[in-house]
Formats: sequence, C-alpha cells, structure tokens
Amino acid sequence: MMEEKGYETMREEKLYFASDYQEGMADEILVRLQETNRTPTAGYGQDPYSESARTRIREAIGIPEAEIYFLSGGTQTNATVIDGLLRGYEGVIAADTGHIAMHEAGAIEFGGHKVLTVAGENGKIRADILAAWLKAFYQDGNHDHMVFPGMVYISQPTEYGTLYSLGELTELRGICDTYGLKLYVDGARLAYALASEENTVSLADLGRLCDVFYIGGTKCGAVIGEALVIAKPQLIPHFFTVIKQHGALLAKGRLAGVSFDTLFDGGLYERLGRRALRMADTLRKALVDQGWRFLFETSTNQIFLIIENGKYEKLQEDVVCSYWEPFDEKHTVIRLATSWATGEREIEQLIQIMKRLS
Amino acid sequence: MMEEKGYETMREEKLYFASDYQEGMADEILVRLQETNRTPTAGYGQDPYSESARTRIREAIGIPEAEIYFLSGGTQTNATVIDGLLRGYEGVIAADTGHIAMHEAGAIEFGGHKVLTVAGENGKIRADILAAWLKAFYQDGNHDHMVFPGMVYISQPTEYGTLYSLGELTELRGICDTYGLKLYVDGARLAYALASEENTVSLADLGRLCDVFYIGGTKCGAVIGEALVIAKPQLIPHFFTVIKQHGALLAKGRLAGVSFDTLFDGGLYERLGRRALRMADTLRKALVDQGWRFLFETSTNQIFLIIENGKYEKLQEDVVCSYWEPFDEKHTVIRLATSWATGEREIEQLIQIMKRLS
Amino acid sequence: MMEEKGYETMREEKLYFASDYQEGMADEILVRLQETNRTPTAGYGQDPYSESARTRIREAIGIPEAEIYFLSGGTQTNATVIDGLLRGYEGVIAADTGHIAMHEAGAIEFGGHKVLTVAGENGKIRADILAAWLKAFYQDGNHDHMVFPGMVYISQPTEYGTLYSLGELTELRGICDTYGLKLYVDGARLAYALASEENTVSLADLGRLCDVFYIGGTKCGAVIGEALVIAKPQLIPHFFTVIKQHGALLAKGRLAGVSFDTLFDGGLYERLGRRALRMADTLRKALVDQGWRFLFETSTNQIFLIIENGKYEKLQEDVVCSYWEPFDEKHTVIRLATSWATGEREIEQLIQIMKRLS
Amino acid sequence: MMEEKGYETMREEKLYFASDYQEGMADEILVRLQETNRTPTAGYGQDPYSESARTRIREAIGIPEAEIYFLSGGTQTNATVIDGLLRGYEGVIAADTGHIAMHEAGAIEFGGHKVLTVAGENGKIRADILAAWLKAFYQDGNHDHMVFPGMVYISQPTEYGTLYSLGELTELRGICDTYGLKLYVDGARLAYALASEENTVSLADLGRLCDVFYIGGTKCGAVIGEALVIAKPQLIPHFFTVIKQHGALLAKGRLAGVSFDTLFDGGLYERLGRRALRMADTLRKALVDQGWRFLFETSTNQIFLIIENGKYEKLQEDVVCSYWEPFDEKHTVIRLATSWATGEREIEQLIQIMKRLS
Repeated sequence: MMEEKGYETMREEKLYFASDYQEGMADEILVRLQETNRTPTAGYGQDPYSESARTRIREAIGIPEAEIYFLSGGTQTNATVIDGLLRGYEGVIAADTGHIAMHEAGAIEFGGHKVLTVAGENGKIRADILAAWLKAFYQDGNHDHMVFPGMVYISQPTEYGTLYSLGELTELRGICDTYGLKLYVDGARLAYALASEENTVSLADLGRLCDVFYIGGTKCGAVIGEALVIAKPQLIPHFFTVIKQHGALLAKGRLAGVSFDTLFDGGLYERLGRRALRMADTLRKALVDQGWRFLFETSTNQIFLIIENGKYEKLQEDVVCSYWEPFDEKHTVIRLATSWATGEREIEQLIQIMKRLS
Repeated sequence: MMEEKGYETMREEKLYFASDYQEGMADEILVRLQETNRTPTAGYGQDPYSESARTRIREAIGIPEAEIYFLSGGTQTNATVIDGLLRGYEGVIAADTGHIAMHEAGAIEFGGHKVLTVAGENGKIRADILAAWLKAFYQDGNHDHMVFPGMVYISQPTEYGTLYSLGELTELRGICDTYGLKLYVDGARLAYALASEENTVSLADLGRLCDVFYIGGTKCGAVIGEALVIAKPQLIPHFFTVIKQHGALLAKGRLAGVSFDTLFDGGLYERLGRRALRMADTLRKALVDQGWRFLFETSTNQIFLIIENGKYEKLQEDVVCSYWEPFDEKHTVIRLATSWATGEREIEQLIQIMKRLS
Repeated sequence: MMEEKGYETMREEKLYFASDYQEGMADEILVRLQETNRTPTAGYGQDPYSESARTRIREAIGIPEAEIYFLSGGTQTNATVIDGLLRGYEGVIAADTGHIAMHEAGAIEFGGHKVLTVAGENGKIRADILAAWLKAFYQDGNHDHMVFPGMVYISQPTEYGTLYSLGELTELRGICDTYGLKLYVDGARLAYALASEENTVSLADLGRLCDVFYIGGTKCGAVIGEALVIAKPQLIPHFFTVIKQHGALLAKGRLAGVSFDTLFDGGLYERLGRRALRMADTLRKALVDQGWRFLFETSTNQIFLIIENGKYEKLQEDVVCSYWEPFDEKHTVIRLATSWATGEREIEQLIQIMKRLS
Repeated sequence: MMEEKGYETMREEKLYFASDYQEGMADEILVRLQETNRTPTAGYGQDPYSESARTRIREAIGIPEAEIYFLSGGTQTNATVIDGLLRGYEGVIAADTGHIAMHEAGAIEFGGHKVLTVAGENGKIRADILAAWLKAFYQDGNHDHMVFPGMVYISQPTEYGTLYSLGELTELRGICDTYGLKLYVDGARLAYALASEENTVSLADLGRLCDVFYIGGTKCGAVIGEALVIAKPQLIPHFFTVIKQHGALLAKGRLAGVSFDTLFDGGLYERLGRRALRMADTLRKALVDQGWRFLFETSTNQIFLIIENGKYEKLQEDVVCSYWEPFDEKHTVIRLATSWATGEREIEQLIQIMKRLS
C-alpha cells in the first residue's frame, strides 16, 4: 500500500459510512492504470494483466487448474454462475436474508430459477436447518411437482457481516455432497472476511470446499470487477459464452485484470481488508463504550446499530449511513460500514458525532 | 484533448487494429479519475459526476426531460432496453447482421424475446424492406400464432461501419409510427458516426427520432460505460429496477459518470471521434492507392478489406486485426478498426506493412 | 345431472379419495361429446361450443363484456395469467402454502417472475398481514433493488380447503387498490367453494372484485380445461398470443367448449359441486363421531386428517389418499378428497374402513 | 376402425378442409372413453391406460427401455423437449419454415433459447446445407460470442407436407453425431407420414435415429395428446418435473392414455392415416385433372394449391381452408388438408366445387 497517510486526505465534508462501494480504487491500482493506459491489449479478459491476475489468484488458492473469470458486479456474477450451474428444473437454496433472495431485483428468477429460502440465523445457513429442509423435501410425496434443490448459496461474510467458521463450511460441504448439491460462496466483501481475527476460512479452504466462489473487487479496492473461481475446470461448459449471454462479459477486461493483478501482488488485498477492520474495530469499541446496542456481534467491516429514530435523523445531518430495517416503534437498525479507504480522522469524527448522540 | 503527441507514445510492438475496445481511456478521463479517486460518493449512479454527466448529455441532445442511465456494456444495454421496452409476446426487428442477432450469445432470447430478422443491406435495414415485412406479417392469417413485432433495433454506425442518413432514419421512424413500434438505436460506436463527413444525423436528431438510444463509451474513450437516453420520461417504468434485475447496475456508477462528464465537457467526445476518422481516412486512401479491394465503402472507423488468405496470415505477424468472414476460397474479409487512441506513427507503419503485402 | 344412481356404479375395487382429478367427466358432458364428435369445427377456441360456453359464463358472472379463454390445466393457467399481468420487474404475492409457491415446479419463475410469499393462515392470506408486508416493502430504502409486488394470487377454495369470505375478499381488493396491485383468484376447485354452505362469495362477486379468475373444470367434471375470466376486456393485450407462447392454447378447444357449455347449462356446475360436498359432509361427520382429529376445519371437499403412522399404512391397503405432511414423529397429515363423482356406497365403505382403524 | 360409413355422416353444411385438428376423436376412442369414464385412476399419466399405451408404443418402436410421456399439444411438447435437451447457451437449428421458427409465438425463445434457422427446401433441411452451416459456425472466430447449436429440429411430415426419406434422415443423424447435436422430430402429423406410399421411415427408424420424437395424437384422431418418445432413458433427467414446470403436465393423463392405448391397438393409428391419404390422393388426382397448379408435390394429407384471388374468395363460401401465403399479385397459396375423419362424400363435394371454379 502507498503511504498510509494518503488515505487521510481529500475526503468530503460529510462522512461516508453507508457502504464500501462508495469509494474509488486503491492508489496502487490507479498507478497501474496510468502506467498501462496507452498499451492496447486484447479484449474480453484475454489481456496480459488478466492473465497475470489469474496466475496470482491460482497461486493464492493453491489450485493451478482453477478457471478464473472476471465479471463486472456482484448481482451479475451471482445470476450468471447460478444459471450456469443449475439445470432448468433446479433452484438455489439461500438464507432468507441472502442477497439473491432480497436485493437483486429478481435477477435469479429472471434466469428462470427459484430461490429456495431457508430460515437464516444472523445471515447464515445453519447446517442442521439445511439438512432438515432437504430431508423434508425428499420425504414429500409431491416433490416431483416441486423445484429441485440444485445448489446452496452462501456469502462470506454474510449480508449481516457474520462469518462461517471452517467447521461450519465443512459441514455444509458434507450436506451438499450427501444430496448432490453444488456449493457457491458470494465473496463480494471477502477481503473483510479474510482480515477478521475471528476468521478461520482461508482462500485455499474456499477453493477446496466450494464448487465456485468469487473474490470481491468492487467493494474491496478494485476499479471494478469480481474474480470468479471455478475450482474444477469445465464444471460449467462454455462458461465464456454463458457470461456473454448474461451481458456480463467485460469488453475492457483489462480494468479487472489490472485491479486483481495489483490486489494479489504482495498481499494488497489482505492489507486493504485489514485496514478496514482496524477502523471498524476502533469504531466498534468506542460505540460499546458509549453504550450503544448492536443488532448482533460482528467481527468484519459492517456494524449493525440500534438507534432511536430521532437520533438517527440527527445522525444523517453529518453522516451517510444505511437504513437497514425497523427495530421497533421507536428504534431503527442502521448499518455503518468501514472500507479499505476509511481514514483515521473520519473514524475519530464519527466517534465524536456518536458520542454527542449517545 | 491533451497534447496530441501524447497519443503517439507508449504503444506496443505489435500494431492493434482489431477493435476500438482494445484501448485504455482518454487521458482527460484518467486525470479526472485521479482527481476524484479519494472522494466518496453515493453508488448506483447517484454520484455528482453522473448527475453532471446527465445534465451535459441532456443539453447536447436538447431534451431537458430525457432520462439518462449508465450501464457497463453494449450487450447488457441492448438486453436490458429491449426487455424493458417489449411486452412478453413481442420481439425485436433487426437486420440479420445486427449485433443482437449474431454476436450477443442469445442475450435477447435469454430474456424471452425473439429477434425477428429482416435482410440487411450493408448492415442497414432498408425502409422499403421493413415496410414489406410488416405488411406481410399483418396479412398473414396466422399472425396471432406468431411473435408480434414490438420495436426496431438498428445501430449507428452499423456493424459494417455504414451510416443511416437523416432521411433514412426519418423514414424508419415513420414506419414505426404506422405500426406502433418503438425505435432503438445502438450507438456503441456513435462517436465514429458523429465525426464522419458523410454523417447527417446529429445527437438532437437521435433524441427526436428514437424512443431510446445509447451513446457508446467503452469503444469511444471512456473507462467503461454506455449512456442510455430515454427521450420520453417514464417510457419504461421502474427502469432502475429493470437494470438491477439484469445485473446491469454499476455499483460504482462514478466510473461511467466521470467518463461521460468529461467526454461531454467541451466536445471531447466529438474530438476523439474525429481523430479516429482522420486516421481511418489516411489509411483508407493509402489502401485504395495500393489497389486493395473493400467489401464495401465505409466512412467511419471500420474498414472491411478483402485479402488473399496467404497475405492475411503474413499480416497477422505484425498486426492484430479482426477476422470477419470468408470471401471466397482464396480470400478472406478482415476488419481494420482505428480508434480515438490510434497514433499517426501506427497508421504509417500499417500503411508500410500493407504496401509490402500489396 | 343424469340419474344420480349412475354415479354409484362402475367404481374400482380400491377406493379413490386422493384427488378430484382422478375421475373421468360428468355423464352429461360425455353425452354432448358423442353428439358433437363428428361435427368439424374451427380450432383454438373458435368453435361454436366454446362461443356458447363463453356466453353462458358471462351471464353467470353478470359481466357481458368479460373475456373468457379456455386453457388445459391449472399450472398452465396460473403461469400464463401471471406472466400476462406482470411487468418484467414485478412479482406475485402468494401465501407460502399457495400452489404457485409450492407445487408448480417453478413454473412462475420459469417465466421470470418471483413468487413473493407472505405467511398464510390455514391456506389464506390475511388482509392485515398483506397490508403490513406491503407497508414494509415500500418503507425499505432499498426497494428499488427488490422485486416489486405487481399482483396478489389467492385460491378459492385454498389448497387447504378453506374459503375466503366476501368480507375478506373485499378487504384484499381494497389493499390491492391502494397499492396498485392486480387480484387473481385460482378457482381450480371453485365448484366446491360455490357449493359450500359456508360460502359467501358468488361468481358475480369474483367478477366484480377480481381482475382475473378462473373457473376450474379439470377437477370439477369437465373433460379437460379451465375457464379463465378477464373481467375488464383488453386488460392483457394479445392474450391469445400469450396463451400460444406458453404452449397453453388448445388446438381442440372444442373439448373445453363442450365441457363448459354443458357445465353452465342449467346449473350442472353447482350440482356437481353440491354432490361432492354432500359426500364430504357425510364423511366429515362420521370421522368426527369416530374421534379423528383434523388439521383444521374445512367446509369444502377436502378433509385434512391427522392419523397415526401405522394406521396410515393400513389405510393405504384399501384407499388411495394423499400424503400431506408429517404432523409429528408418530402422526401424519393426509388428505381425503371427495369429488363430483364420489358415490354414496364409496363413502359408506370409507366410513367403515375408518371405523375399523379408529 | 368402426364401420367406415360412420365417417360419412353428421358433417356440417360447410366443408372443413382447413386442418386435421378440426375434428373430434376416432369412434373407437370415444367408445373406450365411455367404457372407462367412471373408473377412477391415478392422475399425471400414472393411470393404467397410459401404462398400457406406453407398452404398446414401446413395442411398435422396438425399444423396450424407451421413456414415453404424454403432453397435451404440439407447441407445448416442442417447447418442453427443446428446453429439456438444451443447455442455457445452446439453441435449436430449424428450417426457416419450421413450426418452432414461425407459428409458436416465440415459445422457444420464451424458454430462453434461440431458434437458429437454416434455409429450408420444401420445408426440409438439406443435409449439405446443414453441414455447411455448422462448418461456417465453427470457423467463425467469434463463435464464443454466438449461440451454440445444441440440437436439430425437423418435422415429419414437414409443415409443407413433405417427407424425409430414410436416407436423408440417416444423413442428418450422421451430421448430428459429428457435431454432438441431438436430433428431434416433431411428428404432429406422423400418421400421415407413416401412411404415405412415398414414406420410407418407420417408427422403428425414428426410434433408432432420433434422440427424441413425438407421435402426434391431436391431429390424428386422439381426444388430445402427443406421445413423446425418449429413446435413451434418462436422456433428460427429471423430465416429469420439466413437464410440470412448463405447465404441460396433464392432470387427467387418462385422456391421452386411452387415446394412445386405442390408437396403438391393432393398427388403428396407421388405418386412420391411410384413410386421410386415400382421401387426399383422390382429391389430388382430381385437381391435377382439372388443371390446378400446386406449390409443390406432396404425398401426405396436405395439398398446397395456387389459386386466383377471386376464385379463392368464391371457394370460401363453401369451404373452410387455410390461407397460406401470397403467390403473386393475382394468386394466393392455400392449404387443403384431409384428415382421418374426412368422408368420401365430402371429397366428392369438394371436387365438384373445385371443378366449377377451375
């Protein structure tokens, strides 16, 4: 990473803690963009930067034969992978709070597939709940009239900032094996999972336990792009064409190529993640000290706070944050997210603002 | 534009004339990216750069109420617009050589719609052929068992580098009005149409005659992105959500925002287009002098050359160009495309190479 | 109806109480089939029997301008109507126990639409739960990233044999009006609703309160077919073509035409319904007397019984019935359905069998 | 078949020669419907009549392990099979005159697949044209951006009443094998192919050379239904559920079961076909004698006649026939179709009418 103090400058008056996609790109990537800007390259991900990025990612995962594709955003990646993995009569199991179940405007259904929801717990699918769901499905005498489960979708970290442990992920894999299901992990914010002290799931574990997963770039310092990893080559035949059909093929693949080639050069991806978590930890501790209540514990870059409605209104004068859901008549749940770009001064300012409100 | 000589430097050994998406971004945009990189903004196209770009584009078209959306690529934009405009039982009329009919991997059909092809001429739909097609459709006693035409898709310039004249576009609009069809123009390479000496269709004409059209960025100097113009507001209800459903919503809308805000600041878009055409004209004249045959005349940045198979092989040692189609047993049609980034030295080198082969 | 004793003869050894589609057709319809068999007619619902049936149904509903279409089955009808009514970005609200949510193998999602489930109560959507769901949807700051509700799907009787009262239906209509939603009623077993003593919703009420509903034939004595009623003409443009596109257009529309022309001639539809309910009532009373537990009260042709697992196994030696769901470790919920064809002798036999098991 | 004279009675004033689906059902099937009407059976094709029909069809084809499914109509069957056979990125090759390309209202595209048309000749795909199309596809450097061909659709007889010879079908199979394509035959009017003197393709040949084909019932004397034959079991996994998802599952499968059990009992299917062809032959000879021109030669139940526009108008006063297409300014192509139900007296009447017009 460039000189850290660089991250302290040039921020706007209002504090931005709504999400991690509200930032530009890591300085190191901007520099590479400049250096390579006047070099013409092949399109559609065939450029040398994408090739180099693929090599670095394969090394990081430890699977030399893995297929790597770069797509431009999370919803698109989910829709393309899920459609590529499923047969027409199959659906995808997700937690009822999963991104594909809630906030992708029906992109999965647009592709013809049902999202089969199971009750989530803090954003996660519990292995025993999944197992019970599957057992009940196959017991039902009418299941030939129902959508067959074909795969399981989880996110790491989840939409609630929580993490699957290695044990939990291994258990889910076992259930998937039993029922012939594919396992797919949405890693839109993976940098913030990998950097967490609580985290026990490495990139290598994801490569070993998932059929497909993606390493998020858009929310983790890239110009644009998500790096999709298909651990077993040829799992999805003609996936290049599937991407094109979904409108998800980047003509200028070099943007994602340069991004990931830089993110996976010398551990930048992890460093960016750690920075965001250091900021989140500082904020979290201060909020605890100030007596704020949380919806539940998280160890990543997202903090879900319960706040009185009046105070929430006041907070919005100075801070851009995310409305999450009503808590009760008088309280609202909001999300405060740090990112790779969050500066120490901003955290201090936010802590002061929260203190005045507490 | 920055100092023109900048465009002469930093090119690779091999000459790139395969397509206009093989380049980075205009220097002016790169500078704006740097200046704005550390400013956090709202996502999904709500950032101030996107807002400013929308204002500039509305001015350029002369329709203050036009809706402007930024999407990340052409196939995606086509698929999203066409699905947004059509009812389920309708299809889209296109030339049989149209991009949506040939090279989008079935993205339109993925959305449930048939591409109804009419025989194109040099990439264009002739008004009389369209009128005859529509007349025959409605005469057919079985047309209730057929896909209804709901809109017409054309591209400006076409996939063959040709242009619709203002008269031709006006005629097509008339037919669309007669039959209640929407008219949509794919402007992936619009900069190279607007800059052509042959061109008679302005941005204002497109705004006035089309229901929807897009101004291409990816192939015309932007970081990424296409600017979609819906001339009549609310033509497609909830289009933001339609974009999201198609996986076409850029979380980091700022990339397209900064691009178009710069492209439409002081006429950069036109200047970039003119540069590409100046290079193409120089090349075209030299090729004519050298006695090469063309598939047909074009006045934009794409040149379709008929070349002996052996010479084509030789050419590829030094030049990256596009295979187009077989011409006959012994000849191949190839495409040579200049772009906003093509340098004079490259053109000279290509001319020398072609001379040796001629 | 023909001589009622006709319905007592010709039944198989094993008793069939699994569902109402396990029967042939009403004798009256069979006679009409014979009479008309050698008369050639136009296809696709343009035959004179279909025309006459449409006139009769319009009279029964009291809406002379209503459009009536005949489709061949329930899932198909649901999928076609829902796709015809919704815009691409919209979904359909249903109870979580609704047929489209559970037992149509994803036919709605195949058409690109999400089924938005709300918690049902005895198979029904409660107005207050629907209102709360809609209020929460529009409060969510992210709802532009979500599937918009476009219509409400209910069934009368429900999949659990329960009925909406006129008050309840009117309340749902009111909520639909408030939120701009269409209201659609699946009447696969409508004969058994109309004939119930508990019922307060007439055909005229359905015509007045719904945008679209269908009168079930397949399960209510027809050869085949469902009569779809679109109260407001032109609500779904080119619906004939939409039906064809869904593969739901009966080439031999005469089969449904003869069926409904006969069912709505002199009240046969109601009589068939009443017969089924008389049989169900006799059975229900006997089961109460024998001390059986029900999953909940119903007044239509479906009875949901809680039975010990061992007894269920024994029952299946003599009776074909429907497995519904596990009740607890030791008990199962089964469905016993009477139909227009159920004979008194069969009911008596079933009552004897149940007595021995009780 | 019942006494043939039965087929001479009960016809309407106007003569019906528009299509073969304008008739009721064969008398033999009507009798079986009566006999079985009061016998309750399992639904969804699990009834004993369907089981028996499957056995008979397997015997007729000579493939004991073939899977047989009954669906309610042709468009539905085509859409379901094609969607079941193809991967998402694949399309289906058809003649440009093929039913799926023209008259199914986009049912294939509704399922997400492109119909890839090749120029037909008299309704047929010529092997050399198919081979050239495939060669060109794979030569195209951009074919990863295109819809991959996954299967070939043909109809026997074609939409123009022509027939593939055994040699032609064998050639197509060979090309399919070379390119890894499935071969599917739409046999909506198969009875009229099998009965033709020109025909050289038996049911056994279809079973051996196709991956999937269907034996048409709706147009060949059945109540309703098409018998789909999947020669290799498990070719389409969970096909029952795929059928349900497409809304194509007949709850009352017995209707198709009784139909096909009767049609394949003692050669009724062939006899019905022969009757239609005998009538067509008589008509064809008379028309030739009267000096009428044909669009081209056919040997099945469809005759395509070129008629002066004025005479066509006059003809319609007495005869219901099908408008096909304009021939030139002054002439129209019409279709006259006989069927299993056409009576000798009708043929004589039509011949007299045509004589007066000639």
